[in-house]
Amino acid sequence: MKPKLINSIEEMSVIRKQLKGKIGFVPTMGFLHEGHLSLVKEAKKKTDVVIVSIFVNPTQFSANEDLSTYPRNIERDIELLTNLEVDYIFFPTNEQMYPDDFKTWVNVDKITQVLCGKSRPTHFRGVTTIVAKLINIIDPDLIFMGEKDFQQLVVLKQMIKDLNFRTDIVGCSIVREKDGLALSSRNKYLSSSGRKKALCLNKSLLLAQKLYNEGLTSSNEIISQMTNLIENNECIIDYIEVFDPKTLEHIPELVGGCRIALAVIVENTRLIDNIKIV
Amino acid sequence: MKPKLINSIEEMSVIRKQLKGKIGFVPTMGFLHEGHLSLVKEAKKKTDVVIVSIFVNPTQFSANEDLSTYPRNIERDIELLTNLEVDYIFFPTNEQMYPDDFKTWVNVDKITQVLCGKSRPTHFRGVTTIVAKLINIIDPDLIFMGEKDFQQLVVLKQMIKDLNFRTDIVGCSIVREKDGLALSSRNKYLSSSGRKKALCLNKSLLLAQKLYNEGLTSSNEIISQMTNLIENNECIIDYIEVFDPKTLEHIPELVGGCRIALAVIVENTRLIDNIKIV
Repeated sequence: MKPKLINSIEEMSVIRKQLKGKIGFVPTMGFLHEGHLSLVKEAKKKTDVVIVSIFVNPTQFSANEDLSTYPRNIERDIELLTNLEVDYIFFPTNEQMYPDDFKTWVNVDKITQVLCGKSRPTHFRGVTTIVAKLINIIDPDLIFMGEKDFQQLVVLKQMIKDLNFRTDIVGCSIVREKDGLALSSRNKYLSSSGRKKALCLNKSLLLAQKLYNEGLTSSNEIISQMTNLIENNECIIDYIEVFDPKTLEHIPELVGGCRIALAVIVENTRLIDNIKIV
Repeated sequence: MKPKLINSIEEMSVIRKQLKGKIGFVPTMGFLHEGHLSLVKEAKKKTDVVIVSIFVNPTQFSANEDLSTYPRNIERDIELLTNLEVDYIFFPTNEQMYPDDFKTWVNVDKITQVLCGKSRPTHFRGVTTIVAKLINIIDPDLIFMGEKDFQQLVVLKQMIKDLNFRTDIVGCSIVREKDGLALSSRNKYLSSSGRKKALCLNKSLLLAQKLYNEGLTSSNEIISQMTNLIENNECIIDYIEVFDPKTLEHIPELVGGCRIALAVIVENTRLIDNIKIV
């Protein structure tokens, strides 16, 4: 059966009140790929009713970013979600989500200032604000999000805990192409040679794990070798960071369970990826 | 029957899930007076289950304010709420509400920068954050708040609308002593001569209404006459403002439905009051 399409907050709220059982929610910006679909599949397994939102959230883009060109294909998204037997697709308008007199923001301190927050200083404020709104509209028992945006996951878990939202986030593993490239809607921007260069993100993370397996633990030394690998592929590093997965604080020596994340500009496209060191 | 006392967020959440009917919520900082009790009475009329919170919220006080001396009397509060047949009293600890790793804030722009926001720049951030938390914990259908803190009412309504919280605020009229002084827990700080001087707040607001009735509409002229009245009572004006009740923006000419609010320092105590011009 085709999912019910809902494009008004009002209608979503009315429908939500009538829903019974455990509600699973997958927030997306559309242009769905297997990464998103893995979240939907996980939601189908763990909850009774699955709601997917499609909303390209303007407040998480800064003025110099790719809001206007961000890829969209709502028809294809609906088809993919129909195949997975999603129950509801919520795709509100900008005007409804951010009316002219909108003036409320949710801010998480500290952990939004590091990693991606350094080069995208207002990004997480947009993410936390839209997710707070979506939580209130959809009232989900569980929210399913990918670990590719690892910092986003940590920031949103902090928000949910601090503001006592009655929901929880399930983090799901990164989905990759066969050659290792992490799926991202932004991969679409890459030329075929850029597509090959972009493999350096995952390769450098695998190199870090290999170096750690061989006994190297110095974060600086490992980051240095990752840097060489990436720069040899003509890509520009925004950051590479070794950190504690709970606090997102830099750690000088790798330990099992720590994370390494990076943002790299390939052609004109900023891509991110990360790995849990085991 | 005595209200059930709840001092843990966890317990409050568990109990809330079992409650049926319309839930009314009165958030307070304790040291209850007839103003608070009027909110409880209104809640009893309009809802099926009434929950009162008592929590002196540290984040809405700045370092130079009266957090440590803010009056408290939990036993008396419980007695007063028992008399009114309140169902639940929620009084969480600071440590639960703001654990060491707390880092999330709700900010409302613009309307928190005017009026009381000018001299209390972090006050409303504390108010919006604690109320967002309490809404999530208590999940009320209606929240009852007094119009004495008129700006607070407007700010919280904006937050609820912007973040799509599934609740609404009922604003209740200011309760005054027979001589016109608006009830406030902070009136306790006044000496008997300060108590008399403090009447100038309400008197100056009544003067404004009288001048408007007589045909005067210039905000500047009316504020000037209010200023004289207050300064003649040896009180220090923080602000007097004539504004639109929705936007809180200054208006140069009084019109029916506009508000006048003021903050005045009497002895060492900052008091507020306001009036709707009719």
